[in-house]
Amino acid sequence: MEYRIEKDTMGQVKVPAHVYWGAQTQRSIENFPIAQDINKMPKEIIRAFAFLKKAAAITNFEAGVLDESKKELIAQVCDEILAGQWADQFPLVVWQTGSGTQSNMNCNEVIAYRAHVLQGGNLMDEKKVVHPNDDVNKSQSSNDTFPTAMHIAAYQILMETTIPGITKLRDTLAEKAKAFKDVVKIGRTHFMDATPLTLGQEFSGYVSQLNHGLKAINNTLDHLSELALGGTAVGTGINTPAGYSENVAKHIATLTGLPFRTAENKFEALAAHDAIVEAHGALKTVAVSLMKIGNDVRMLSSGPRSGIGEIYIPDNEPGSSIMPGKVNPTQCEAMTMVAAQVLGNDVAINIGGASGHFELNVFKPMMIYNFLHSARLIGDVCVAFNDKCAVGIEPLRENIQKHVNNSLMLVTALNTKIGYYKSAEIAQTAHKNGSTLKETAISLGYVSAEEFDEWVRPENMVGEINL
Amino acid sequence: MEYRIEKDTMGQVKVPAHVYWGAQTQRSIENFPIAQDINKMPKEIIRAFAFLKKAAAITNFEAGVLDESKKELIAQVCDEILAGQWADQFPLVVWQTGSGTQSNMNCNEVIAYRAHVLQGGNLMDEKKVVHPNDDVNKSQSSNDTFPTAMHIAAYQILMETTIPGITKLRDTLAEKAKAFKDVVKIGRTHFMDATPLTLGQEFSGYVSQLNHGLKAINNTLDHLSELALGGTAVGTGINTPAGYSENVAKHIATLTGLPFRTAENKFEALAAHDAIVEAHGALKTVAVSLMKIGNDVRMLSSGPRSGIGEIYIPDNEPGSSIMPGKVNPTQCEAMTMVAAQVLGNDVAINIGGASGHFELNVFKPMMIYNFLHSARLIGDVCVAFNDKCAVGIEPLRENIQKHVNNSLMLVTALNTKIGYYKSAEIAQTAHKNGSTLKETAISLGYVSAEEFDEWVRPENMVGEINL
Amino acid sequence: MEYRIEKDTMGQVKVPAHVYWGAQTQRSIENFPIAQDINKMPKEIIRAFAFLKKAAAITNFEAGVLDESKKELIAQVCDEILAGQWADQFPLVVWQTGSGTQSNMNCNEVIAYRAHVLQGGNLMDEKKVVHPNDDVNKSQSSNDTFPTAMHIAAYQILMETTIPGITKLRDTLAEKAKAFKDVVKIGRTHFMDATPLTLGQEFSGYVSQLNHGLKAINNTLDHLSELALGGTAVGTGINTPAGYSENVAKHIATLTGLPFRTAENKFEALAAHDAIVEAHGALKTVAVSLMKIGNDVRMLSSGPRSGIGEIYIPDNEPGSSIMPGKVNPTQCEAMTMVAAQVLGNDVAINIGGASGHFELNVFKPMMIYNFLHSARLIGDVCVAFNDKCAVGIEPLRENIQKHVNNSLMLVTALNTKIGYYKSAEIAQTAHKNGSTLKETAISLGYVSAEEFDEWVRPENMVGEINL
Amino acid sequence: MEYRIEKDTMGQVKVPAHVYWGAQTQRSIENFPIAQDINKMPKEIIRAFAFLKKAAAITNFEAGVLDESKKELIAQVCDEILAGQWADQFPLVVWQTGSGTQSNMNCNEVIAYRAHVLQGGNLMDEKKVVHPNDDVNKSQSSNDTFPTAMHIAAYQILMETTIPGITKLRDTLAEKAKAFKDVVKIGRTHFMDATPLTLGQEFSGYVSQLNHGLKAINNTLDHLSELALGGTAVGTGINTPAGYSENVAKHIATLTGLPFRTAENKFEALAAHDAIVEAHGALKTVAVSLMKIGNDVRMLSSGPRSGIGEIYIPDNEPGSSIMPGKVNPTQCEAMTMVAAQVLGNDVAINIGGASGHFELNVFKPMMIYNFLHSARLIGDVCVAFNDKCAVGIEPLRENIQKHVNNSLMLVTALNTKIGYYKSAEIAQTAHKNGSTLKETAISLGYVSAEEFDEWVRPENMVGEINL
Repeated sequence: MEYRIEKDTMGQVKVPAHVYWGAQTQRSIENFPIAQDINKMPKEIIRAFAFLKKAAAITNFEAGVLDESKKELIAQVCDEILAGQWADQFPLVVWQTGSGTQSNMNCNEVIAYRAHVLQGGNLMDEKKVVHPNDDVNKSQSSNDTFPTAMHIAAYQILMETTIPGITKLRDTLAEKAKAFKDVVKIGRTHFMDATPLTLGQEFSGYVSQLNHGLKAINNTLDHLSELALGGTAVGTGINTPAGYSENVAKHIATLTGLPFRTAENKFEALAAHDAIVEAHGALKTVAVSLMKIGNDVRMLSSGPRSGIGEIYIPDNEPGSSIMPGKVNPTQCEAMTMVAAQVLGNDVAINIGGASGHFELNVFKPMMIYNFLHSARLIGDVCVAFNDKCAVGIEPLRENIQKHVNNSLMLVTALNTKIGYYKSAEIAQTAHKNGSTLKETAISLGYVSAEEFDEWVRPENMVGEINL
Repeated sequence: MEYRIEKDTMGQVKVPAHVYWGAQTQRSIENFPIAQDINKMPKEIIRAFAFLKKAAAITNFEAGVLDESKKELIAQVCDEILAGQWADQFPLVVWQTGSGTQSNMNCNEVIAYRAHVLQGGNLMDEKKVVHPNDDVNKSQSSNDTFPTAMHIAAYQILMETTIPGITKLRDTLAEKAKAFKDVVKIGRTHFMDATPLTLGQEFSGYVSQLNHGLKAINNTLDHLSELALGGTAVGTGINTPAGYSENVAKHIATLTGLPFRTAENKFEALAAHDAIVEAHGALKTVAVSLMKIGNDVRMLSSGPRSGIGEIYIPDNEPGSSIMPGKVNPTQCEAMTMVAAQVLGNDVAINIGGASGHFELNVFKPMMIYNFLHSARLIGDVCVAFNDKCAVGIEPLRENIQKHVNNSLMLVTALNTKIGYYKSAEIAQTAHKNGSTLKETAISLGYVSAEEFDEWVRPENMVGEINL
Repeated sequence: MEYRIEKDTMGQVKVPAHVYWGAQTQRSIENFPIAQDINKMPKEIIRAFAFLKKAAAITNFEAGVLDESKKELIAQVCDEILAGQWADQFPLVVWQTGSGTQSNMNCNEVIAYRAHVLQGGNLMDEKKVVHPNDDVNKSQSSNDTFPTAMHIAAYQILMETTIPGITKLRDTLAEKAKAFKDVVKIGRTHFMDATPLTLGQEFSGYVSQLNHGLKAINNTLDHLSELALGGTAVGTGINTPAGYSENVAKHIATLTGLPFRTAENKFEALAAHDAIVEAHGALKTVAVSLMKIGNDVRMLSSGPRSGIGEIYIPDNEPGSSIMPGKVNPTQCEAMTMVAAQVLGNDVAINIGGASGHFELNVFKPMMIYNFLHSARLIGDVCVAFNDKCAVGIEPLRENIQKHVNNSLMLVTALNTKIGYYKSAEIAQTAHKNGSTLKETAISLGYVSAEEFDEWVRPENMVGEINL
Repeated sequence: MEYRIEKDTMGQVKVPAHVYWGAQTQRSIENFPIAQDINKMPKEIIRAFAFLKKAAAITNFEAGVLDESKKELIAQVCDEILAGQWADQFPLVVWQTGSGTQSNMNCNEVIAYRAHVLQGGNLMDEKKVVHPNDDVNKSQSSNDTFPTAMHIAAYQILMETTIPGITKLRDTLAEKAKAFKDVVKIGRTHFMDATPLTLGQEFSGYVSQLNHGLKAINNTLDHLSELALGGTAVGTGINTPAGYSENVAKHIATLTGLPFRTAENKFEALAAHDAIVEAHGALKTVAVSLMKIGNDVRMLSSGPRSGIGEIYIPDNEPGSSIMPGKVNPTQCEAMTMVAAQVLGNDVAINIGGASGHFELNVFKPMMIYNFLHSARLIGDVCVAFNDKCAVGIEPLRENIQKHVNNSLMLVTALNTKIGYYKSAEIAQTAHKNGSTLKETAISLGYVSAEEFDEWVRPENMVGEINL
């Protein structure tokens, strides 16, 4: 490979000749050969940096500390990055310095050098028109840029991927709840037969879980909307022009279309990432919901002949390489695996969040990596589960009816007519004899056939249905 | 011991003669000899059941399904329990049936039998005036009472212990932030010397963390305010009188003074405990904050001679059994141990919350046990840390000043005057020679003594201070 | 209450007149009002301290640094404690100093003052015959005693409670595996019908899990057998007589009957508790096994009419307060709740273990509290599950047979006879038509009736059975 | 793009014309659009499958159920895959069916179709010479192949990456312990000054941690060496030739050079992954050690002027984009971030491991993804930390000496000379007056100058040093 020589405050570094990055990015590649093929800094962070650097350039220009041509060049490169160019110019991994300094410098270098080339320069020129530190990073520090990029990326993925994914699934389940609202089925508590409810009611519980989950996520957005930018090195805002924090936050808000504002307290914003911990707390709550829903769907669809078999789910693929004809609840499996992953990610985030020292938390890249992973997984799996499973769910009415008819638990309907103990006796006797409730109730002399038919009506045991 | 014979639907059971509980409580004692000396059902749950049973009796009376004398008796026993009587009548452990049925029955039995005695009966009477199932548990099921008791207990402990504890510590830290607002000290990022800030600014970060934590807890109260009661066995509300759900929630709200309301969706309320998962997500966020604060305080107070030593914390006890004169940051240690515990409890709650099946989650006692544990620990440790540590924190001005004077990082102030590279050279040279910045800057010929004194003033590097 | 005045290096303290503890214990009570009613230092730790203090006294006597009468007195009090006396003299909580210093001092004080009384002294005497620091704590520091007590307590509970409990359940399940070895039943993968196996084979999987779990626990005992004692304050063994470490470990081994030895590296033994982390890693593995077993048992026993219903489990209590006749898998619920708790405890232990600094880990009480909790819960729940559930498990042969007969998956037996695609076609056609495999196979013309009967025999599909 | 038509038991699928995969792989791509750019099935699993499929082909040939030419072709393709070819032919993600069926089929398809091309065929040929199911997957099921691949991949990465990485770091730290064995320094407990030890002793604790960690990993290899292969669909080994399990395990052992053997109990091997849970329990123990080591190193190197500053660590990069001359402990940061990640991964694995049902655990891909992630991260970060940090650690003797000289804790040396209380008084007085111990001890009249110099010698307080 051909190389060029770059230098920074520590000396010279050999860099591949044609890349836009410089000395500090190259050092990081060499210093952190850790899972380099699988754990690149998430692309959402690079995108967030593009918004941030553009906003900073505009704000610096408006404050009179950056000249217009540099501002324009920086903005132009940022727009290129946002358009998806230069993805291969961000080779660093998550497992670098815990402040994310090196990814900040990677962005500064790429933007500066690309800007230099854009205006006619050459990568080999010793002096570049735009300087990574003095221009692109002006009025900034890694310590405030990286947490700002974390919040931008976190907020964006929630709005673009997570919330829409959950909402889509929620809507489908709500439709199903409505469609199935009259399908009376046996309830199950402790995995045991219980009093009836409708399939629609059962599904309405899932809808309610996801509605509460969406609310929980929304409750955490306010903390995420606070940006550290303007705090610079330790939160004091040293080396920033007057009004910088507020103005740069406004520009970021405008560029992203999201309600970002400057953090009231910059010391927290650098030294702690409770906003990430808190928001991921909402994501783990949704993961818990998805685990419940995924488990229920797979168990309700189990069979085809020796399971519960009360719902049909679509066949998307041949299920087994050895057992012909078998179709598996694979979307449930992907969803519950995602749920387990998110619960694991939560712990990593908690530990990172708890481990900040003094003016800086240095678990930043690890924390945002896990956050973006969870947010993406939840969003994606909700869509896959929705499209390939939920939309196709239908009741298997024959099985449902058979279970209702067989059930001993309808005896509960007699509770208020003949008392708890007689009802229990009927159920226990029927259970022992393998007989039906009706036969048993009559033969024990506690009710007449007419009374039984009038009192024990599953459809009267399911309460009000407003879905 | 003397015994009496009690019976339930399964037959006869020998019960200690003088206890108020009956057959089902006794069976549970015998069936679940699991950590019986250390894991009793939390007293907060018993208290919540007392509110619940009283409210249910009143609602049942108003609905015309329970006569006034029984209502009065039930209410009277509940008031006794709320006044702290009969604590020894609730011997069951957390590790019982996952629906909490046995603790519900424990409450039903104690209330019924105590009521019987209150109105002149004897525990040996075969027939009691008030029946555990038919009267005390009327219009209820374990499946809706236990989750209702969970929400009541959780909401109450947050309001009575957790939030006041955090608030108390927050207020003290806020006072300290104000008191220390002018104490300029060296900042530390990556555990390394950085640009200065004030001790007040540092503490303001902790205040901001706790303020956000309090907001996070508050955001979860709405979900906790939803009560399952009225859902009965599977969420359909079978065997409840008209309007029961709404009315009983209103009575619970009145009795507790908290804004409880009936859950919009009872199927979720029985089958999932996402409200507990979500609210504990806020508690774990606070735990993360407390870990940061506790670590910072212990590190800032480290020494007395070979540590950082920038703050004084009170001496509460002799520190070591072998090293005389040593005083340790024991309150920090208790607080960070609590934080670790809460992060562990969070995982237990997540797993429980994710493991509901069909119409019922059967990890209820384990979930609320962990929730109450965390809520209590956070509340208590904040108060202890506040009273025995935070209120006594004072700056050690001599050390603070020494660190500021020695610092190389004040060179940052020269960044905008002589540029990044020259500044770096000064710092590196001073570092190599063990000399001061000023000497070095002058000897390198980059600034005059006057310029240095004018430009490098720590108190000008800490930004605006509005605390 | 009456008080007496005690003093330590910090001054005077009022202590209840008749308790054996002194100033430092009292300070801890007052300084740490944190969950005092529910989180006392575990009794296993107090017991471990009794072994330790006795062994230390003997070793000190043998080394000539403690006179015989003091040795005898200390040993006598330790024996009293081991016999269960004085449990109320250890009032401290887990949430104290992270080194456990205060519990060490609590032991020192109680032993010294009780010794003083034993030989005729009075608690009011200003000078006691035996001194807490100079005698009872001789050649020790909190920093090496508490971790020693952790290992003693952990090892003992594993040997006395955890391993016997798991072994008991393993043995019962092994008997069941043998007893059910010929009961051919439908297999289930992805919760879907699969090829058959025997119920004995299914249970043999549980046995294998527990066997591996026992092996995993055993693998961690070696690290637990290393004792920190003799390291004193920072691991160097300052202030100990020659040979002290080895000798005191030998005495502890003799007294407890367990193969304790002095830790090769005392610096690790004080500063880290990887042995606890590692051993709890084995406990969490067992928890994972128990969750699987508990879930399987509850699902296999589900019904009675609309579930899987292939095994009977004992009825231990009335299941529901509203649904008469319903019996729930409550032992499974206790066991799976325990599993969730252990997985949560594991995280708390991990965080504590990771958070040691320099020469001392100060998360000791929290770590051992969680360890003992898990060890106890697993041991107890295995016994309860064994006695109240596992021993009574029986196959429900009628249901098992029905499921086998109905199954479509027996078609796999045709795979090697007529090929994968034709087999799949048979299964899919039977599925669509609700017909049996045999009818369908014949009507499609792929096999004759005789061939089907010869080829498709569930009992030939279960492989070798050596249980 | 050009396409060809492939078919499976469910019908036709359009597949890119030139890829080696077939219908089932294509369906999976379309059904699981979940984090497709970041969560591909780990390459270690593909490699494990290549070993497995080759071993299976050989075993099938030897058993007379696969002809020689097919065996040769399959083996040849497997060798190509092992040589790193065809990496782009395995496009599936982790978030697929929980049995890993689709990745098993991906391997079957690629091997079959590549084999077809190798012997002169064309991908467009309707009939291929080698069939994915009937030949490549012969005597196998996804249910036993995927867990076999899990164990192969897990064992290999431990041997090739994790253990060598830890060992390398352990060796360097052991060298440092030896090199620093006489460097007397102040100890720190509770983050407070304590009695002295040598820097070598301090480092020996880290060595001991890693030695125990290596032992812990080794203890789990035996369980990992058990292979599920031969269990086929549900563990019974249906459709396998006699001796298949043992023989295929032997071939895998030979091919990999690792001591694999057939699992004694195949039912466990399919339905549970306790071996993965257990082995990751060892990895999390190592993560806990690394967190301790990483934290200590960063704190010991803190400064340069206002920290602890007792060791030098290499400068690998400019530390901050705004603070010139600042160098950060970035390798410690990468290492502690990795530790946090591994502790999170552990929870995901635990949940997956606990969630198997009946004859199959369907969290397989998620579990092995996390396992391989952790094993890789630990191995890589140990090497990076070793090469870029540990090897360059040197004592900063001036600071170390200063701390020792200043220390009050040397007073402990007087404990055995003048008693605990007088020693404490000296330390407290010196502390109050800011004076040295010697001055104070003399002025209080407790010792003479000569006695002090003789008794208080740090180098006599560090015990025996055998490193």
